[in-house]
Amino acid sequence: MFKHLASTLSSAVLALLFAPAALAQSAAPTAAPSAALSGPLMIAKQGSFFVGGRDVYSETLSTLPAYAPTGTITVDQMYVRYQVPVEVKRRPLVLIHGCCLTGKTWETTPDGRMGWDEYFLRQGHPTYVIDQAARGRSAANPVQIAAAKLGKATPEQLPAVFSAGHEAAWAIFRFGAKYPEVFPGMQFPLEAQAEFWKQMVPDWIATLPTPNPTVNALSDLAVRLDGAILMSHSQSGIYPFQTAALSTRGIAGIVSIEPGTCPAANGDLKPYMGMPILVLWGDYVDLSPRWSPRLKACREFVAAANKAGGKAELVLLPEIGIKGNSHMLMQDRNSLRIADWLLAWMDKHIGTKL
Amino acid sequence: MFKHLASTLSSAVLALLFAPAALAQSAAPTAAPSAALSGPLMIAKQGSFFVGGRDVYSETLSTLPAYAPTGTITVDQMYVRYQVPVEVKRRPLVLIHGCCLTGKTWETTPDGRMGWDEYFLRQGHPTYVIDQAARGRSAANPVQIAAAKLGKATPEQLPAVFSAGHEAAWAIFRFGAKYPEVFPGMQFPLEAQAEFWKQMVPDWIATLPTPNPTVNALSDLAVRLDGAILMSHSQSGIYPFQTAALSTRGIAGIVSIEPGTCPAANGDLKPYMGMPILVLWGDYVDLSPRWSPRLKACREFVAAANKAGGKAELVLLPEIGIKGNSHMLMQDRNSLRIADWLLAWMDKHIGTKL
Repeated sequence: MFKHLASTLSSAVLALLFAPAALAQSAAPTAAPSAALSGPLMIAKQGSFFVGGRDVYSETLSTLPAYAPTGTITVDQMYVRYQVPVEVKRRPLVLIHGCCLTGKTWETTPDGRMGWDEYFLRQGHPTYVIDQAARGRSAANPVQIAAAKLGKATPEQLPAVFSAGHEAAWAIFRFGAKYPEVFPGMQFPLEAQAEFWKQMVPDWIATLPTPNPTVNALSDLAVRLDGAILMSHSQSGIYPFQTAALSTRGIAGIVSIEPGTCPAANGDLKPYMGMPILVLWGDYVDLSPRWSPRLKACREFVAAANKAGGKAELVLLPEIGIKGNSHMLMQDRNSLRIADWLLAWMDKHIGTKL
Repeated sequence: MFKHLASTLSSAVLALLFAPAALAQSAAPTAAPSAALSGPLMIAKQGSFFVGGRDVYSETLSTLPAYAPTGTITVDQMYVRYQVPVEVKRRPLVLIHGCCLTGKTWETTPDGRMGWDEYFLRQGHPTYVIDQAARGRSAANPVQIAAAKLGKATPEQLPAVFSAGHEAAWAIFRFGAKYPEVFPGMQFPLEAQAEFWKQMVPDWIATLPTPNPTVNALSDLAVRLDGAILMSHSQSGIYPFQTAALSTRGIAGIVSIEPGTCPAANGDLKPYMGMPILVLWGDYVDLSPRWSPRLKACREFVAAANKAGGKAELVLLPEIGIKGNSHMLMQDRNSLRIADWLLAWMDKHIGTKL
């Protein structure tokens, strides 16, 4: 058994995962306040719940004799896991993962360091980690699979669920220009790459309406939290903007990390006028044919928003002296340095509302 | 937005989810030690990781132009979220969910009370909540869906992924004899039923080998934890036994709650000889054509194991004066009373190893 485990986890990673206290020691970068990384975590309240969801009736739930084919299932709900620290010093922070991933994005890094979920919590943010609708612990709707298996739907009607393969994902996550090349100075912990691949899950987003049901759920959540920061990543980069377009209620600010899409520069910018907005990018962006045009479009949005009287900012980490970051910058070796920079940005521009 | 949310969550549930401290107050049954339910939760260490996993090459990862069809994905890994209390007083406890569900099973109940994950943690157990392979945050393998969509596989080759509909699940979870009848004295919080349905996800188990890759991963995890209690439920009821059959290393004891299957009474009983085993059942079992024969088979296994010199026990909650429990007894109104009983059983029979 140990052999089996050892074949998929490096011994260094194992040591981090299982040795008490090793995590806190190894994760502390010299620049970060050590108090936030060591000592007991004091939680006032924690738990999980769902937001949203709708019932769907189907006659093709199952092809197995043990489970009835006919009945009702609930889909489109969004799973939320939350922790509230004893000493709340900052606003509620909603962490929204990207393509082909789940809320795991924000938890322990592939090489066993503290994730942003805990780091921001230790800095006084109540944290809310979600699984997008139809991802992770939020149920997808698979009824067309059984329908096709039973001959009641055509193969063309099958859901366009997809998996991002390691080789293609390598360039998408900007570990290098192409698999398995590595950009010089790369901060992603590539020795734990195998652990990162395990985070990836099938993506059902193409089967969902626009805006994604996650957006409605985020809006409901923001209203209840009454002043939350929505922090999104990649595929979900646009969600906080779409949420604000539904209603700005409850949204204190937006931090969009390497968004796949920004709002159109020539679109309705009114929802974004009163709101502090940060669009944050890592390194090597202009070396990527996928990301370079997206950065350009986000620059145009930020310029247009500010011209219209908004409070938007676009930051490339290399321009402020932080270099070598991949698309998964919340898991990069210097992830806590970036978190510290974000803490300062959020405190200054969005405020702590104490 | 509030309207949308209110339509799917009762206001009582909302109050529990969002009002600070409400959770601890409302969740305290008179019999439970109040210290375990109130006051800050002191965490020495928390995080998440994967165990196991294997790489699969495919030429049908995607039918979408944005994602390459060819490449490697990682599947069969098991997601684990853990919390270690500051004051460890008991053994590591691995919580293993059942059919059509995820690790959410053990978290906050549908009506907003504290889940067993936190309750056992507050009683000094390090807790490890898993998502079975191909469920929740543990990636399923969807490549046959794109293959069939592209005409490279037949509809018959599609995965037998299924969803359990509310109507059929009602009897399976023993809320009543049939939907929407309710057994008299039912302890499940039916006013929050809609929140329970949101916990259900598509189940890919029929696409996996036997034993389920979860079993290998549980074995690896038990070895690393070096003396864990494996607590399973329903579909996963057999997993701790299958894990022990692979190797008894690291397994201190088994608590199997309403297992779908017990080991065969006439099979190899040697793996279970040195090990304290509890098979626990709720109420109304003999009223269920699905569960009654399973109870009978488990009785036969326990009798055979003890005859061979084992330390197995089968308990029906009504026989010890705890009545009205559904199949989801960890979410029933009296869930913490049952947890207290389990704490005492585990302390006595498995020991705390301090």
